[in-house]
Amino acid sequence: MALHLFQMLKTSDYASVISMNLFVALLCACIVIGHLLEENRWINESITALLIGLCTGVVILWISGGKSSHLLVFSEDLFFIYLLPPIIFNAGFQVKKKRFFVNFITIMMFGAIGTLISCSIISFGVIEIFKRLGIGTLELGEALAIGAIFAATDSVCTLQVLNQDETPLLYSLVFGEGVVNDATSVVLFNAIKSFDLEQPGHGIALQFFGNFLYLFIASTMLGFLGGLLSAYIIKKLYFGRHSTDREVALMMLMAYLTYILAELWFLSGILTVFFCGIVMSHYTWHNVTESSRITTKHSFATLSFVAETFLFLYVGMDALDIEKWRFVSDRPGTSVSVSSVLLALVLVGRAAFVFPLSFLMNLTKKSENDKLSFSMQVIIWWAGLMRGAVSMALAYNEFSSTSGHAQLRFNATMITSTITVVLVSTMVFGMMTKPLIRYLLPFPPPPPKRKNSTVSLDESASPSPKSITVPFLGSNHDSEVETDATDYQRPSSIRDLLTTPTHTVHRLWRRFDDAFMRPVFGGRGFVPFVPTSPTECSGQPSPEWD
Amino acid sequence: MALHLFQMLKTSDYASVISMNLFVALLCACIVIGHLLEENRWINESITALLIGLCTGVVILWISGGKSSHLLVFSEDLFFIYLLPPIIFNAGFQVKKKRFFVNFITIMMFGAIGTLISCSIISFGVIEIFKRLGIGTLELGEALAIGAIFAATDSVCTLQVLNQDETPLLYSLVFGEGVVNDATSVVLFNAIKSFDLEQPGHGIALQFFGNFLYLFIASTMLGFLGGLLSAYIIKKLYFGRHSTDREVALMMLMAYLTYILAELWFLSGILTVFFCGIVMSHYTWHNVTESSRITTKHSFATLSFVAETFLFLYVGMDALDIEKWRFVSDRPGTSVSVSSVLLALVLVGRAAFVFPLSFLMNLTKKSENDKLSFSMQVIIWWAGLMRGAVSMALAYNEFSSTSGHAQLRFNATMITSTITVVLVSTMVFGMMTKPLIRYLLPFPPPPPKRKNSTVSLDESASPSPKSITVPFLGSNHDSEVETDATDYQRPSSIRDLLTTPTHTVHRLWRRFDDAFMRPVFGGRGFVPFVPTSPTECSGQPSPEWD
Repeated sequence: MALHLFQMLKTSDYASVISMNLFVALLCACIVIGHLLEENRWINESITALLIGLCTGVVILWISGGKSSHLLVFSEDLFFIYLLPPIIFNAGFQVKKKRFFVNFITIMMFGAIGTLISCSIISFGVIEIFKRLGIGTLELGEALAIGAIFAATDSVCTLQVLNQDETPLLYSLVFGEGVVNDATSVVLFNAIKSFDLEQPGHGIALQFFGNFLYLFIASTMLGFLGGLLSAYIIKKLYFGRHSTDREVALMMLMAYLTYILAELWFLSGILTVFFCGIVMSHYTWHNVTESSRITTKHSFATLSFVAETFLFLYVGMDALDIEKWRFVSDRPGTSVSVSSVLLALVLVGRAAFVFPLSFLMNLTKKSENDKLSFSMQVIIWWAGLMRGAVSMALAYNEFSSTSGHAQLRFNATMITSTITVVLVSTMVFGMMTKPLIRYLLPFPPPPPKRKNSTVSLDESASPSPKSITVPFLGSNHDSEVETDATDYQRPSSIRDLLTTPTHTVHRLWRRFDDAFMRPVFGGRGFVPFVPTSPTECSGQPSPEWD
Repeated sequence: MALHLFQMLKTSDYASVISMNLFVALLCACIVIGHLLEENRWINESITALLIGLCTGVVILWISGGKSSHLLVFSEDLFFIYLLPPIIFNAGFQVKKKRFFVNFITIMMFGAIGTLISCSIISFGVIEIFKRLGIGTLELGEALAIGAIFAATDSVCTLQVLNQDETPLLYSLVFGEGVVNDATSVVLFNAIKSFDLEQPGHGIALQFFGNFLYLFIASTMLGFLGGLLSAYIIKKLYFGRHSTDREVALMMLMAYLTYILAELWFLSGILTVFFCGIVMSHYTWHNVTESSRITTKHSFATLSFVAETFLFLYVGMDALDIEKWRFVSDRPGTSVSVSSVLLALVLVGRAAFVFPLSFLMNLTKKSENDKLSFSMQVIIWWAGLMRGAVSMALAYNEFSSTSGHAQLRFNATMITSTITVVLVSTMVFGMMTKPLIRYLLPFPPPPPKRKNSTVSLDESASPSPKSITVPFLGSNHDSEVETDATDYQRPSSIRDLLTTPTHTVHRLWRRFDDAFMRPVFGGRGFVPFVPTSPTECSGQPSPEWD
């Protein structure tokens, strides 16, 4: 899939066939080497792909005699149209929905308000520090754009350093925040570009907020509706005569359709496809055959995995874009200082919302177990520091205009600095996350076999040993309520309900879901078990995702 | 996947986002409508997609005021680089290997020698008839190119009209022939284009034959080696700690790598990826986890299904390419007569090898059961008459040069005639195949539920009821030998071995396979059962494909 992306190449060109061969071979190499390094505590698959990309870039640079370092030029379209949708859709599809929604308020606080705080700090920090260091005077619009670019956490990389089974709460918080943050950054960035900041009026903040709210709600609704439509179509039409391939094709195509519909209507495709993934795993996934379930689960994960690997390989290769570096090579000091300033601002900007917001959230919790300890806050702060392809894509969008030499130099500096920040944050921060978690959290060590598995891999998505022993083909929905010590206790009195409002919402939602939604759209326990596939056997538990 | 193909569009363009939305929505519509029409005896999915494409073309033509009828221009690259590989790979992956190899000689006769006969008849027929009708005098090279273009059976459409479970022998013959024929046509076409036909010498036939043989053997070997490499890597590296997503990704990427490697080395990618599919389903598929098996089986089928649907939709939409039709509209008679001549030559050219070659093959068979009856020969003749995307792609390659007005007119005529032949043969011949089979072959009617399922759908690929009752997790390989009345009897004496040489070859191969290949590359019975996935349960039969 990811291979189909050489849109910028004339594929009849023989040179492009060579590039494709090399690229596919490198992807295979990344997968094999990533597997071999699985037990390593420092390296993860993103870093492997980045390093392989960098090495290949060096080799190409050497072969071509310093002319070119990459097989492909980083293209925003490629990223936003082909690589990002499968990654984010899969994230929605595989996310543990109950945990996500139980922590919904915290996630929204971190993802939306936190991003705004981070963006503001970076923006004003950049204006002030650039002025003092004599790098240049930024316009407000440019500074805000830089803020939005560097407020975008890399949720793809986050998935690789945190583990859904080992640290479920942290995972759901950091990853959920990452998704909302992705969307917020893109929305912010577009809002900043479309607003006329030259004439700031009274209503601009309100207008901005209204715009953000509209985008958020409309995108979410579109995703929900797309998911429900797919569930309805498959439930109504396919009932009794299932066909795995049609079901899988329809799920894929409809998910992609919601994404490009969102793009068509200038909404946030990322949010849309994320919620579409959630709805599809809650309803549609239960309406299809057992083989469709296994196939969708793994093929979406595989697509996402290949897209991630492709992306890191691509960023690694593109990092040596010699044209850009040549531009800044006569003033290397500037580039270094800009990168350092940005990295420092990223660190400060994130700290400035993680710790205060965690403090606020802790005030609302009663039990010591529900509170975020200081160690956890540090991990949340650290794990969200990585900047990745979203930052790259936004930076290329903002700084690829070619108007005037001074502007050109500034743009080249910003792009090389973005690349530096992405590489440093992914490699240095990424490498140190796993050891940091082990140092800060005194968890019992997980079984060695699954020690370093990431969410995009099979093992971590398969049910935990506990859930295997609880078959729930019937209506015993209570098995969904897990009794995890780090999670929450079921509310048993009115006082509890008041202090833990999300649980009430969850319960009301469950009642509404069982009474109205599932009878129409299907879902666990509401679709008769159709034994059409060869993998069916009685008493076999479905993977427990909710 | 198929959606990633808008390489000729600037995707940042808003109009192209609209096109993509429309195209994806139409794909969804094709799947749903194709499902609803599944019980219909005349219509199949290809025809549905073609008709929807045509209707959309008419609507676009009407909306744009006669300016344009398609969202995309037919692109050879699109077809050969993205759409064809998944279709042919899946065909190799899902083909019943034993039947394919037992009928190998017949398939090769039909596919290679038959295509040569068909190509010669069409070439010389075109020269003669065009001269007599006053359409023009063709050069030998042009005529041979036309021969190669119209000798290319559409194996994609064949898959839709024949059923692997209902008519296994016919299916394996016609489909196997189709794959070899695809490859032969492309090889022929390239050979014709690269040879200097102006100065025909003595050695040209020999050189041509040598070239064909080299391409055939080299392509096949590359496919075999690619498949074996994937099996070896997965067996060696992944042993004991499987990861479904990595395995699936590696299988997909390595299969695609063999295809583009073949293109890189100017071999036949179609043959390569077909044999790679066969080897992967024989070795690699048995080395992976149970969930990987289900996932690969269905996701490859889904990819192929989506690519097929995309293709027919695309051809249907492109058929109304108004520029081309405007060129020929001042001489409508010519276009009609060219199309009729070509259709007639296709019919005659195919009859000229199916019946003689069947007669020859029947001479070598002893048992009445093994012989091809006249009814079967008629079906083989008829089912291979459809011309599809391979013909379109080759025609665009040959006739898209723009040198001189007369040449331009001739080229436009040839392209519109190709489109006409493709549409007429797919719709008319395609629609009549199912009724023809039912009329000619007095089979017991199959169970209604699976009546019209095609090979790209779940049910036909799932094991037949018989095989479900025979678990073969151990070494009882004899369950592979099916006792099908229309198939063959196991040779039991030396006389039988002499009259049925393919069976001996098969037996020797099996012995070699068990002794040397499977211990190294894995395969059924040679890989310990690794219960890593949630779908595992003991005593459960794997799908029986061999």
